Amino acid sequence: MKASIITIGDEILIGKIVDTNSAWMANELNSIGIQVHEIRSISDDKHQIISSINELLQVSDFIFMTGGLGPTNDDITKNVLCEMLDCDLVLNEDALSNVRELLGKRGYEINENNYYQAMVPEKAKVFVNKLGTAPGMMFRIGEKLLFSMPGVPFEMKYIIENKFIPYLKEQYNFESIFHKTILTSGLPEAMLAQKLSVWENSLPEEIKLAYLPSPGYIRLRLSVYNANNDLVNLVEQKVSELKTIIPENFKTDNDLKPDELVADILVKTGLSLATAESCTGGKIASMLTARPGSSVYFKGSVISYSNEVKINVLGVSPEDLEEFGAVSSQVVEQMAIGARKLLNTDYALSTSGIAGPDGGTPEKPVGTVWIGLA
Amino acid sequence: MKASIITIGDEILIGKIVDTNSAWMANELNSIGIQVHEIRSISDDKHQIISSINELLQVSDFIFMTGGLGPTNDDITKNVLCEMLDCDLVLNEDALSNVRELLGKRGYEINENNYYQAMVPEKAKVFVNKLGTAPGMMFRIGEKLLFSMPGVPFEMKYIIENKFIPYLKEQYNFESIFHKTILTSGLPEAMLAQKLSVWENSLPEEIKLAYLPSPGYIRLRLSVYNANNDLVNLVEQKVSELKTIIPENFKTDNDLKPDELVADILVKTGLSLATAESCTGGKIASMLTARPGSSVYFKGSVISYSNEVKINVLGVSPEDLEEFGAVSSQVVEQMAIGARKLLNTDYALSTSGIAGPDGGTPEKPVGTVWIGLA
Repeated sequence: MKASIITIGDEILIGKIVDTNSAWMANELNSIGIQVHEIRSISDDKHQIISSINELLQVSDFIFMTGGLGPTNDDITKNVLCEMLDCDLVLNEDALSNVRELLGKRGYEINENNYYQAMVPEKAKVFVNKLGTAPGMMFRIGEKLLFSMPGVPFEMKYIIENKFIPYLKEQYNFESIFHKTILTSGLPEAMLAQKLSVWENSLPEEIKLAYLPSPGYIRLRLSVYNANNDLVNLVEQKVSELKTIIPENFKTDNDLKPDELVADILVKTGLSLATAESCTGGKIASMLTARPGSSVYFKGSVISYSNEVKINVLGVSPEDLEEFGAVSSQVVEQMAIGARKLLNTDYALSTSGIAGPDGGTPEKPVGTVWIGLA
Repeated sequence: MKASIITIGDEILIGKIVDTNSAWMANELNSIGIQVHEIRSISDDKHQIISSINELLQVSDFIFMTGGLGPTNDDITKNVLCEMLDCDLVLNEDALSNVRELLGKRGYEINENNYYQAMVPEKAKVFVNKLGTAPGMMFRIGEKLLFSMPGVPFEMKYIIENKFIPYLKEQYNFESIFHKTILTSGLPEAMLAQKLSVWENSLPEEIKLAYLPSPGYIRLRLSVYNANNDLVNLVEQKVSELKTIIPENFKTDNDLKPDELVADILVKTGLSLATAESCTGGKIASMLTARPGSSVYFKGSVISYSNEVKINVLGVSPEDLEEFGAVSSQVVEQMAIGARKLLNTDYALSTSGIAGPDGGTPEKPVGTVWIGLA
């Protein structure tokens, strides 16, 4: 079964927000065996909405559409759906009690715009949204299904997870999709591809290989659609072969990015980590703590953006700061040692660099970064 | 002039990566007066690439396409373009010297896959990419232009900023687009819309209004396409009116999000800030330091993920931690006071909360967060 995703709203098209919804939805749909054929961001324009729906109904079994369901005049999705499906807006009692309840909790009385939130196209099957005033809706168009929901990320996630996916699982038996993702580092893409060319040619047609390069690492993804046991076993075998072809560069086959791999190793070994961050400003701490359960291995961090904090909190020598500068091996070494001691951990990682756009010199151009590990 | 964006590659469709490229590109294109009509993510499939290009050429003057230009077998963009435009792949000397230079810097010799990186469709105008082996390319299709570039974000940004945009500015006179974005907080969307309904109805057709809701705040965007002085003045006047209609909720009209507004106020007042973060794990520090120049107002932070760090580094009372728990007003107060003193700043902001998924209790359910300010 194939799905397409439509995101309605100018804010993505003018570049004011990044569309994180589509990747999240695609991942959820993939996990239950629905393949995503296309993702589209379009304007809140009647003709564009209708033509996108019609085009994507040709190539997908399901369409998941977000946005344009708010209470304001620029939200036109419901009216467009009424026109397209030739029906009227009607008041939905379940949606209305939900609106009343949500407003009550926040201490507000219902107003005219709120009533409008409980109006839905007559042909919609309504899925009440406990986290917001706009309900999820489903429309049957021939053999195909069109799902509409708000674009606010936590509302969208709630409706997909708790309403649409359970409904779909009840109605259909999906074939399974199997992905295996390997993290490699140390070889640029062209060189990695050369080393793997014989292995790559040995893959049967059913196993699709993708190179996913990022700065500092490349992931390899093997995918099988309509997976059976034999194919899954073959993928596992091919992954084992990889380990012997690039033993130095093969880091993990557990679909982990570098920060997740570090976390994984720390959890397994029972060791702890702290960071002392200057140029990264808390980014490493924030990556490491983004995972549930990170308090087991991550004790804390000192963001030492100013030299004063480097000296007074981390114990960096003022003389060394003066002589070698904040971006130097001497300083990151002392930062790491200081953080390890202060925060009482097995390891501490430190960074100091020139992030730019200003502050570069011929000896230390923008982009220079020292990393310390104690 | 209108543009569309096509992103080629399965990694977005299976939800493994978020497409941040398109928003960045859309923002750049908007800033020079090119309106983005549609953004599409598609699979690296020949038919899908060709049909998307053909469909979008009907509705846009320019197509910007990323991805599928790597040296590996899953990268098919160049071959598809050759087939579509009926031409052959030829070696481009400028691209080849660039590949040689890039590999030389990293200490590698050129291999067969690298040579392939310098092969381009004969009908391409080539724009050398100093940051990667795949060049930017431009194709003239009737009156329209198709731009192709790698999907690696820093390479894409380099080519757009330094090659495509300067080229387009040289060739065309674009009409200007004017956006004004207002930050509001304290009113939910339906209530805000009700308060603004008379004002909204007074806007002329040329001024487009959008409500952009986020958890905790709503931005209002006024847009004018083909802007002239009169319309720009009218937008400014309408924004002034807003200030008097919602004086409590109007936060700024400088297109700033809450973290950017805090930074802006600190810069203007010359005051400094530190953070002491538990549940947010460095996220606030990392947001505040993401802006160039943040070292002026941001001195540093203590991420006190463990109680030990709260006690030993920030000076939180072990008895209070025991009695009230880490997620309590008492503890965030002491964290903020401790951070302000330790890091020697005018203000310190602290957080402690139960991020979940585990750790909630009936008295302190998942989602409970205390915020302190000293």
